[in-house]
Amino acid sequence: MTDKLPTRSENYSEWYNQLVQKAELADYAPVRGCMVVRPYGWALWENIQQALDRRFKATGHVNAAFPLFIPMSFLEKEKEHVEGFSPELAIVTIGGGEKLEEPLVVRPTSETIIGYMYSKWIKSYRDLPVLINQWGNVVRWEMRTRLFLRTLEFYWQEGHTAHATAQEAEEETLRMLDVYTDFAVNEAAVPVVPGLKSENERFAGAFRSYTIEAMMGDTRALQTGTSHFLGQNFAKAFDIQFLDRNNQLQHAWTTSWGLSTRFIGAIIMTHGDDQGLILPPRLAPTQVVIVPIYKNDDEKVRVMEVVERVQKELVDFRVHLDARTEMTPGFKFNEWELRGVPLRIEIGPKDVEKGSLAFARRDLPGKAGKSFVPQTNLPEQVTQALKTIQATLFERALAFRKANTYDPKDYGELSEVVQSGWAFSWWCGDAECEAKVKEETKATMRCIPLEQPGGEGLCIVCRRPAKQKVYFARAY
Amino acid sequence: MTDKLPTRSENYSEWYNQLVQKAELADYAPVRGCMVVRPYGWALWENIQQALDRRFKATGHVNAAFPLFIPMSFLEKEKEHVEGFSPELAIVTIGGGEKLEEPLVVRPTSETIIGYMYSKWIKSYRDLPVLINQWGNVVRWEMRTRLFLRTLEFYWQEGHTAHATAQEAEEETLRMLDVYTDFAVNEAAVPVVPGLKSENERFAGAFRSYTIEAMMGDTRALQTGTSHFLGQNFAKAFDIQFLDRNNQLQHAWTTSWGLSTRFIGAIIMTHGDDQGLILPPRLAPTQVVIVPIYKNDDEKVRVMEVVERVQKELVDFRVHLDARTEMTPGFKFNEWELRGVPLRIEIGPKDVEKGSLAFARRDLPGKAGKSFVPQTNLPEQVTQALKTIQATLFERALAFRKANTYDPKDYGELSEVVQSGWAFSWWCGDAECEAKVKEETKATMRCIPLEQPGGEGLCIVCRRPAKQKVYFARAY
Repeated sequence: MTDKLPTRSENYSEWYNQLVQKAELADYAPVRGCMVVRPYGWALWENIQQALDRRFKATGHVNAAFPLFIPMSFLEKEKEHVEGFSPELAIVTIGGGEKLEEPLVVRPTSETIIGYMYSKWIKSYRDLPVLINQWGNVVRWEMRTRLFLRTLEFYWQEGHTAHATAQEAEEETLRMLDVYTDFAVNEAAVPVVPGLKSENERFAGAFRSYTIEAMMGDTRALQTGTSHFLGQNFAKAFDIQFLDRNNQLQHAWTTSWGLSTRFIGAIIMTHGDDQGLILPPRLAPTQVVIVPIYKNDDEKVRVMEVVERVQKELVDFRVHLDARTEMTPGFKFNEWELRGVPLRIEIGPKDVEKGSLAFARRDLPGKAGKSFVPQTNLPEQVTQALKTIQATLFERALAFRKANTYDPKDYGELSEVVQSGWAFSWWCGDAECEAKVKEETKATMRCIPLEQPGGEGLCIVCRRPAKQKVYFARAY
Repeated sequence: MTDKLPTRSENYSEWYNQLVQKAELADYAPVRGCMVVRPYGWALWENIQQALDRRFKATGHVNAAFPLFIPMSFLEKEKEHVEGFSPELAIVTIGGGEKLEEPLVVRPTSETIIGYMYSKWIKSYRDLPVLINQWGNVVRWEMRTRLFLRTLEFYWQEGHTAHATAQEAEEETLRMLDVYTDFAVNEAAVPVVPGLKSENERFAGAFRSYTIEAMMGDTRALQTGTSHFLGQNFAKAFDIQFLDRNNQLQHAWTTSWGLSTRFIGAIIMTHGDDQGLILPPRLAPTQVVIVPIYKNDDEKVRVMEVVERVQKELVDFRVHLDARTEMTPGFKFNEWELRGVPLRIEIGPKDVEKGSLAFARRDLPGKAGKSFVPQTNLPEQVTQALKTIQATLFERALAFRKANTYDPKDYGELSEVVQSGWAFSWWCGDAECEAKVKEETKATMRCIPLEQPGGEGLCIVCRRPAKQKVYFARAY
């Protein structure tokens, strides 16, 4: 790893890998495919957690914790589930020095063990709905891994709910997709397309899977959150039954939904530039970095007096004062640009004289993002600057997605555009057409967006009549 | 499990087991020795986490996340560590359908893998100290388990720090013991004795282990948090070296410290009574429950109007309105007493007339804890009531510990008192004396408290001169 970050156009993949490490978000662990989330990365994740948890609680959910280990036999109770997950399992076969009678799976997801507990807890319609979320770690034995995007162990939240009717459960599924969309747009400034996954791409064991899809800086798609309507599949496999209002025994309807540390990858690749990260102000661990500038002790005394006053005034923001004496201001500028701090405040001797200070916006590097502002009303000025940066990041990402989304006129053009963009095309609904695109272009169907143009068209693959438009894209 | 909770004097152990489940704090998982922490229990844990995390951050620590899996060879690098932990390991031998070349241990604690990462990150004295904490789950293959007190998987925080000097590291160890003491006393109202563990009882791989010990309602001791000065043991095993100010390569000095969901057991057993839980107001998921009382629709309208106003006024507290219509107020009283809500507010038609309402303190059941208060200045009144309850719980627990701590005059009396209390006795420092007590009385040395009476005495076991007093007690 050299000192200089590769540019995105040189090597997007290396830009990403090196940036994650240089910015000290994460590091490789000494176990293949596992990561260490470093303090800066974990602080970002904590902010993501808080923003989501607030929304979960506001929609009536509570948190709990279910075991890490799941008996192998549990997974086998839902046929599609075990088929989907069995190639990816980490299995504990020895405990306390002895071979276990039944091997334990390290959870890849918790529908099965939570389903078992729900069958114990739910007896009557009065016990419903059950609206539980869990923050934790899961393990999927992936062969090709990348920090945040795909690791053996990752951190996430998984919501698991049980309802008396199919309609209620489907409403919950869509409500949580909405929560994810709202979080992505308004906290992370990541524009996403909420939509339905094709049957082929749905979660193993789900009746319907919904997703939010985001376009990364290289135009590839990233699935950044999913919400599944599980029908009665898991309720039947685990016997989650309740007495309804008419005293009839019924199976419950369940959902599950998750968003993981993968989202950090989405933030990096949506906003980052050749200088490094650009973190959205609402989630940034450090929103404002203050860099004092002085040449001698006399200047230092005068500058630091203002610096300390500014720091005190900004106590309601996440502020870091970089008071290191062994680095030059220029070195510090580069470092905080690499680490994506949204706003830099520079204070030098001239600022002390003039009663001013310099704002440097991370979203507009160089002169374009620099302005000199009076030292008055600082909290208001910083609030405004952060809002502007947040809005700019979102607008820019949305414009980028629009500019790189195509409506190809035929299959030939689709094959071309998906090499460096998304195709938004009519699809007849046939899995064969979907498979053909994947095989021949490496683009997968990302989703059938909830928002449809209406009307009809011809399937981009087979030219038969089609009622829905879908996104095709190469994806992470 | 019958409906009625056994009394503590009937069967303390069953009282505990049933209470944990009836109060819906936790449930047994379908994997031996594992637990499900239910929403009420997890909300308590979240409050514990926040109270601790605040203190960790105020003392300069940051959070991060290290992998769940540790290569078996890592544990073997520190001799005492592997000897201590190897009987308790859960081991992954299969990943992605294939037998692993090197088995992976599910972390029982993370000194080894964190030590490995620190050796990568720490190069110079400028990189020190490293002050990292991790919130997560660990697994120890225990044979005899009990909900919260000892489970195969449990939740905790583990702090891991590295320092340039032994003195700094030992100061950190004691600082975190202080943080735990402050948390136990001021948040959980659990009086604890901070002290040093004997060599025999110290953490596997530590140079010195400190503990906070609490007395449960049956007079047994519970170790509720530990802080370890690891010397250079792990730094040498994992090659954590740095260039000091004189450009000399040195091994770092490290510490680790942890507090787990076991602390929930301490709260239950310190404060609970025969009616159920009594949760300290500062940590209680619900601080105030409002129970409306009415007999007919007319009364209901009038009562609910006041109830809603009261609820709005108390928005800064964690308030639950129990508006269920299918239960009697009496049923609700019992339920919230079982679940330990510190303050109950009852509002009936007479209260509407008189402009009053009833406060029922959970720490003083029955008439003693009941008072009628005016509907004015409610936030102040509730603040005051919760403070009084918090203080009463602490004082009562401290008085209980004092009343059950003895200064036996000889070994014979020690053998007796430790059957239903703690002995505070002189000890010569000889491990043989310690072992004799354990073997003959089942009491272990809980700690050498930091606060010593001074002076000298005769060892309670061998009558040789002794300079320190220690606690002996039967323990969980």
